[in-house]
Amino acid sequence: MGRTQHKDVSYYTEGILAGNRVVLSQAITLVESRLPQHQALAQTIIETCLPFSGKSIRVGITGVPGVGKSTFIEALGMKILEEGRKMAILAVDPSSQISKGSILGDKTRMAQLAVAPHAYIRPSPAGDSLGGVTRKTRETILLCEAAGFDLILVETVGVGQSEVAVHSMVDFFLLLLLPGAGDELQGIKRGIVEMADLIAVNKSDGDNAQKALHSAADYRNALHLFPPKESNWIPPVVTCSAINGTGLDGIWQKILEYQVFTQDNGFFDHQRQQQTKNWFHDSIGQLLTNQFYQSPGLQDELSSMEQKVLNQELSPAHAARMLLQSFWKVQAGLWAQEKPKFKGEK
Amino acid sequence: MGRTQHKDVSYYTEGILAGNRVVLSQAITLVESRLPQHQALAQTIIETCLPFSGKSIRVGITGVPGVGKSTFIEALGMKILEEGRKMAILAVDPSSQISKGSILGDKTRMAQLAVAPHAYIRPSPAGDSLGGVTRKTRETILLCEAAGFDLILVETVGVGQSEVAVHSMVDFFLLLLLPGAGDELQGIKRGIVEMADLIAVNKSDGDNAQKALHSAADYRNALHLFPPKESNWIPPVVTCSAINGTGLDGIWQKILEYQVFTQDNGFFDHQRQQQTKNWFHDSIGQLLTNQFYQSPGLQDELSSMEQKVLNQELSPAHAARMLLQSFWKVQAGLWAQEKPKFKGEK
Repeated sequence: MGRTQHKDVSYYTEGILAGNRVVLSQAITLVESRLPQHQALAQTIIETCLPFSGKSIRVGITGVPGVGKSTFIEALGMKILEEGRKMAILAVDPSSQISKGSILGDKTRMAQLAVAPHAYIRPSPAGDSLGGVTRKTRETILLCEAAGFDLILVETVGVGQSEVAVHSMVDFFLLLLLPGAGDELQGIKRGIVEMADLIAVNKSDGDNAQKALHSAADYRNALHLFPPKESNWIPPVVTCSAINGTGLDGIWQKILEYQVFTQDNGFFDHQRQQQTKNWFHDSIGQLLTNQFYQSPGLQDELSSMEQKVLNQELSPAHAARMLLQSFWKVQAGLWAQEKPKFKGEK
Repeated sequence: MGRTQHKDVSYYTEGILAGNRVVLSQAITLVESRLPQHQALAQTIIETCLPFSGKSIRVGITGVPGVGKSTFIEALGMKILEEGRKMAILAVDPSSQISKGSILGDKTRMAQLAVAPHAYIRPSPAGDSLGGVTRKTRETILLCEAAGFDLILVETVGVGQSEVAVHSMVDFFLLLLLPGAGDELQGIKRGIVEMADLIAVNKSDGDNAQKALHSAADYRNALHLFPPKESNWIPPVVTCSAINGTGLDGIWQKILEYQVFTQDNGFFDHQRQQQTKNWFHDSIGQLLTNQFYQSPGLQDELSSMEQKVLNQELSPAHAARMLLQSFWKVQAGLWAQEKPKFKGEK
């Protein structure tokens, strides 16, 4: 962080509210930092920016590797910028379960957007858990909104869990598919297809155009099998070609239509409130677990219980129950010491 | 549960250890029950059966819908039974994120196994969270092992999260694929391909046989791109036809080879211990959260904090921190009442 460490909260908040992207980037770096003092500063910045956030449409975009996501975002983004929008592009990319390899979304994939004055691209934050990445992205959305960005695109890599995370933070969820992908693909993406507010079959160009129309028809039929969405919105299935630029205007119109439709029927605000609530409860869960594992005096018992579980002397569930009982006692004792119960007594 | 409610622990444990499958089924029903008295009984049964569990090989099987999983399990299972094995077949099927629709694995899908004297099929437990389904399946594995089943097959539906759950409870993970499925499929299954200890390209029959060989070669090449597995096992890629019964013997031999290989190099036990540890920590996390939300005197503040978060007066992370502080104070007070600090004083 270098010099920026010594800046105070007002430096950041004033910079962000003035739309200064250098300051915005510095603040996001604080959000992403693990250092406690950075985190404390970041939380104060977020708190101050909070009343100025929320005035945007948040769009999630997903699709398997090879579907042409970057080209699509670049082409759609350049069109939207023509309308005078300010657009931030973020990425959620949890490391793979085993290899921890991260497919970084970087600016070189979107050459035009990277230099567009009203676009702001922020690569995926590093993190050893999806929870951490999710929190950072949610907080980054708030800061971008406070900086005046009124369209937030959140991109995800095509791996099961990140889609659910992105779906939990956006208003509109767009699924990109390839022409001619078989039933097996549809099967595996079942949960994700259900989340989609719009399905676009990309690469509908040249020899693929006919195939894309067929695929779109197939997906349209498949969508009829799903129960109606809570929003009452019927997800359109369209074809497009990010390379030729066809179909993109129609997609953007659908996003705007969705915004009006769900704002009118109340779902837009309802969903945002629900997402905020879930975020709150996720935070509680994470904090609780952290405090548990960091609590002093518990380490010995934790190790000994773990050993008993490994020796098949106790079942994991039973051992957990016993351990938590001691935990509550220890915690209560600590609080009692800090603020003795019978303080007035001699 | 009817009459079985009044049976005592020894009824269940003696029945299970004698290999009585009616009693085993009753005990699993207790494991799956939400009633606290059933849960308490179930935990005691598990605890008693624990020393008799573990003596099996646990095999996870996954693949997209349409890959022919049931036919494969039925054909492979009937072959294995010929060797005098006792086999239990369980399923993990978390409800879909949104529709909560469950694709139930039922006995009608495996007509021969359903009536085989040494096979035991238990459909997927119901549950409103993957965590719940996972716990129930893990506990069911232990009971089946105590009942003498020495091969446990755990089947999963082809949706991202359930594979991770199944991988966390088995020794060997088998991935079924279709011939000729494109790169896009490979892309989306990246995390799952990495988990596989064997890849079998099924439906390698008739016109598909040649295609299956090509697919197998492709997957074999793709696997070279992954880092070596912690087990040092090199996952074979084979073709098979569940309908014609070809390739199944080879797959079973590979599973047995894997068992010997990893028992020799220590990975088999290492992985089981790791899985048990993770199960223990999952249990802690779940219990901690449950006890937090059920704690008395917290509801009012929880609601008021939630409201402040929804009104954008507090950020979710900040509100969570404040709430936990009050929570600990309340807990300290409760413990102090229950067991006063200065008990000895007059």
